[in-house]
Amino acid sequence: MDNLGIVFLSELVGTAMLVLLGCGVVANVILAKTKGFGGGTLMINFGWGLAVFAGVIVSYASGAQLNPAVTVGLVANGATEFGNAAFGTLVPVGIVSVLTYIAAQLIGAFLGAIVCWLAYKQHFDAEPDAGAKLGVFSTGPAIRSYGWNLVTEFIGTFVLVFVVIGFGGGRQGDGGMAALGALPVALLVIGIGASLGGPTGYAINPARDLGPRIAHALLPIKGKGGSDWSYSWVPVVGPLLGGVAAGLAAIPLLPLLG
Amino acid sequence: MDNLGIVFLSELVGTAMLVLLGCGVVANVILAKTKGFGGGTLMINFGWGLAVFAGVIVSYASGAQLNPAVTVGLVANGATEFGNAAFGTLVPVGIVSVLTYIAAQLIGAFLGAIVCWLAYKQHFDAEPDAGAKLGVFSTGPAIRSYGWNLVTEFIGTFVLVFVVIGFGGGRQGDGGMAALGALPVALLVIGIGASLGGPTGYAINPARDLGPRIAHALLPIKGKGGSDWSYSWVPVVGPLLGGVAAGLAAIPLLPLLG
Amino acid sequence: MDNLGIVFLSELVGTAMLVLLGCGVVANVILAKTKGFGGGTLMINFGWGLAVFAGVIVSYASGAQLNPAVTVGLVANGATEFGNAAFGTLVPVGIVSVLTYIAAQLIGAFLGAIVCWLAYKQHFDAEPDAGAKLGVFSTGPAIRSYGWNLVTEFIGTFVLVFVVIGFGGGRQGDGGMAALGALPVALLVIGIGASLGGPTGYAINPARDLGPRIAHALLPIKGKGGSDWSYSWVPVVGPLLGGVAAGLAAIPLLPLLG
Amino acid sequence: MDNLGIVFLSELVGTAMLVLLGCGVVANVILAKTKGFGGGTLMINFGWGLAVFAGVIVSYASGAQLNPAVTVGLVANGATEFGNAAFGTLVPVGIVSVLTYIAAQLIGAFLGAIVCWLAYKQHFDAEPDAGAKLGVFSTGPAIRSYGWNLVTEFIGTFVLVFVVIGFGGGRQGDGGMAALGALPVALLVIGIGASLGGPTGYAINPARDLGPRIAHALLPIKGKGGSDWSYSWVPVVGPLLGGVAAGLAAIPLLPLLG
Repeated sequence: MDNLGIVFLSELVGTAMLVLLGCGVVANVILAKTKGFGGGTLMINFGWGLAVFAGVIVSYASGAQLNPAVTVGLVANGATEFGNAAFGTLVPVGIVSVLTYIAAQLIGAFLGAIVCWLAYKQHFDAEPDAGAKLGVFSTGPAIRSYGWNLVTEFIGTFVLVFVVIGFGGGRQGDGGMAALGALPVALLVIGIGASLGGPTGYAINPARDLGPRIAHALLPIKGKGGSDWSYSWVPVVGPLLGGVAAGLAAIPLLPLLG
Repeated sequence: MDNLGIVFLSELVGTAMLVLLGCGVVANVILAKTKGFGGGTLMINFGWGLAVFAGVIVSYASGAQLNPAVTVGLVANGATEFGNAAFGTLVPVGIVSVLTYIAAQLIGAFLGAIVCWLAYKQHFDAEPDAGAKLGVFSTGPAIRSYGWNLVTEFIGTFVLVFVVIGFGGGRQGDGGMAALGALPVALLVIGIGASLGGPTGYAINPARDLGPRIAHALLPIKGKGGSDWSYSWVPVVGPLLGGVAAGLAAIPLLPLLG
Repeated sequence: MDNLGIVFLSELVGTAMLVLLGCGVVANVILAKTKGFGGGTLMINFGWGLAVFAGVIVSYASGAQLNPAVTVGLVANGATEFGNAAFGTLVPVGIVSVLTYIAAQLIGAFLGAIVCWLAYKQHFDAEPDAGAKLGVFSTGPAIRSYGWNLVTEFIGTFVLVFVVIGFGGGRQGDGGMAALGALPVALLVIGIGASLGGPTGYAINPARDLGPRIAHALLPIKGKGGSDWSYSWVPVVGPLLGGVAAGLAAIPLLPLLG
Repeated sequence: MDNLGIVFLSELVGTAMLVLLGCGVVANVILAKTKGFGGGTLMINFGWGLAVFAGVIVSYASGAQLNPAVTVGLVANGATEFGNAAFGTLVPVGIVSVLTYIAAQLIGAFLGAIVCWLAYKQHFDAEPDAGAKLGVFSTGPAIRSYGWNLVTEFIGTFVLVFVVIGFGGGRQGDGGMAALGALPVALLVIGIGASLGGPTGYAINPARDLGPRIAHALLPIKGKGGSDWSYSWVPVVGPLLGGVAAGLAAIPLLPLLG
């Protein structure tokens, strides 16, 4: 397999793992009759953080970007190569590699959401609230206001990408979240969720939100409602803008990295 | 002691530690009059994750498989040696070593459950609900449906074994959970519990479920009910299938591991 | 940029990150209609600890002091240089560098609080309780008594600075929290919050409390009340005294550090 | 200062830190009007685990035993030296060094409890329940039965000391908890608390229980009741027996440690 194939597969597996475990913890906490029902926000924060942890571990070969906002942030930061030098999987940054990464992330997220639905099939069937079902797949705002929701997603993603690419990848030249390390990224995501997840449920990742939303729309989920497409652009555009801004903001700070 | 004796003892001690602490946290959260009563799902997730952490620390000599699903997953992945090269405890993979590992895991789980019962003896006596007593020892489904319960156990174990053997042992050739490291495995188990534990309580380990169930059947527990043998095959077969599938799935991904 | 400029920017960015995420978790738990509403004290402890984690990661260049109590504690301990030797950013300790650090921390905290307000803008608008709004920005005592509140802040800060400078920086000669490491500091802050945060909400950092309080006073927050200036000196003076005491107490213990 | 003086001071500081933060989290969760009131068992588990974390960090020079059960367990295991080889602080094991360690631990625990009382002074005053006040200082059983309570303390301490000395100190020949490392020990203590703390509140350390109990008896705590001396021997004898048993049990397992 050539390097482009390897990073495609690596991103796909990693993002599928991320979304399977991430959507899973929401299912556990909000769907009817689960053992974790009512487990609370901190449990959701830990679940998503550890989902990223597992996702990063299984996608070191591609640098574990797992998130289009990280990908475009690295581009904005001036990355010339994606992948992982230690694995010999470097690919030059360009339209092909960027689309390869983002496509793998979206497909992985879509597949991970399907597996999550299978794992919780009976609880989707037992859940009467269509909104809860959608909530397992995709984020929605606590108070709907596209402008302010966009601001919140922008800020949360800025924090994620700024730390990841400025202070992990910035040192290594080829890294996504793998460059910072699985545990630091997991802790960072737990922290962002706890601290900035209140208004919108912290998508901070277009693939994490859009992939499962497509799965929600296509899957034969019993008693499901609409997929809230009117909101769907916010957790795509906000994170992409936040990622680009973080990538640009990290440039003048690179001298600080020694 | 020869290497087979060492790995037997090591797996037995590790699995006993795992089950003592793992069943213990459930006892603390669900049995009457304990200090942790009602402590919630996240506490159970942390308790089980840290139980694995302690179990892995005390069984490095055998590679800390601690789980027949890991053992058969390593076989399916093509492992030729079990143990830990750094400890000089390698044994060739074969029917003898596989049975040695699984027997040690089952016996260790059985013994760990007995010690847990002793630690919580008074609270077992004070607990009126026979179902809660069994719940300390073994898993049961939130919604009973052997087929879907099997699917959930398959998925959860696949995640565990895929990460452990594909991305830990795969690099070292002889490893169980020790190859990935005690802390990453603990975080992974906390994550799987939070994310995929909702429908069945995440046995994801035949020894962890069957050993304590046998202990439940044999111990003179005051006011106990049946041991739910009709469900008992699910947390054995599901994890074994998930482990084998993960071992096989990790084969084509080995090139990604550099 | 000269070293003084680098450490100024580094402290500013780090403290802004710290306060954005730290105030954010309080907003998530106490403001109306957030997804984390009622998430509890442990979630706040984790949020603040991980806020420090993220703040330390992005300010290694300055040694990640992020706290005037750490800065004065290092001076009291006899530090001759600030910064991070590994980054080549050392500056001599003196009135200029001390004021540079503290000014950067205060400005960073002020800016971080503004971004937090933007992220939670709608929830500040929806929150009827003026006290909750202030609580997002700055600490207040559970039982008001300036003397005892001062004691509690002194003790909490002593623990923080004693561990950070005595057992991190003490070994390296130039360090703030970076010398101990981002993860140990985060765990320490979670622990101090859980254990000593009960009476005053653990400011343990004059910049963390005063910077956001100034932001609260200046921002056009809908329905805000007063900024409780009568209490504002306690979380400034208590931590400064605690930091100096810890710096002095660590001197005789330096021989223990090998 | 000679080595005996260094290890005395090191154990004293470490155990004081441990008890200050450990008793502190209980105060935060159970005393009236604190910010952490009702924070739950998991918060107490984390608080105690991170208390051990901080205690270990500040007592590396003595090997961070911090617990007479660890000390006697090391003796039973056949240790010939205490301290920390890397710090040049080794002292020969004998009646003098054993008593030095245990005295330092008791005095440190006593002092730590006093500081905790000062930090929560107003909340002790505001708390009407004398039992809650004692509960901050020392453990008590959920169901009183000296025999079974002893069994539970024995088991919990066995787990702690077995892991610490068998798999940390065993490899280094001179270690207490420092040999295993601050983070692993903290995780282990969180796990033991979550899993085995239900019946007795997991003293698992004679100094941690007896030192604060003496402080409770001597301090002028408003509205305090008795210090429950009739139970006080259980969390001393149980842990000492558990520690010795673990030290002995670890001997035959030393070959497993490579």
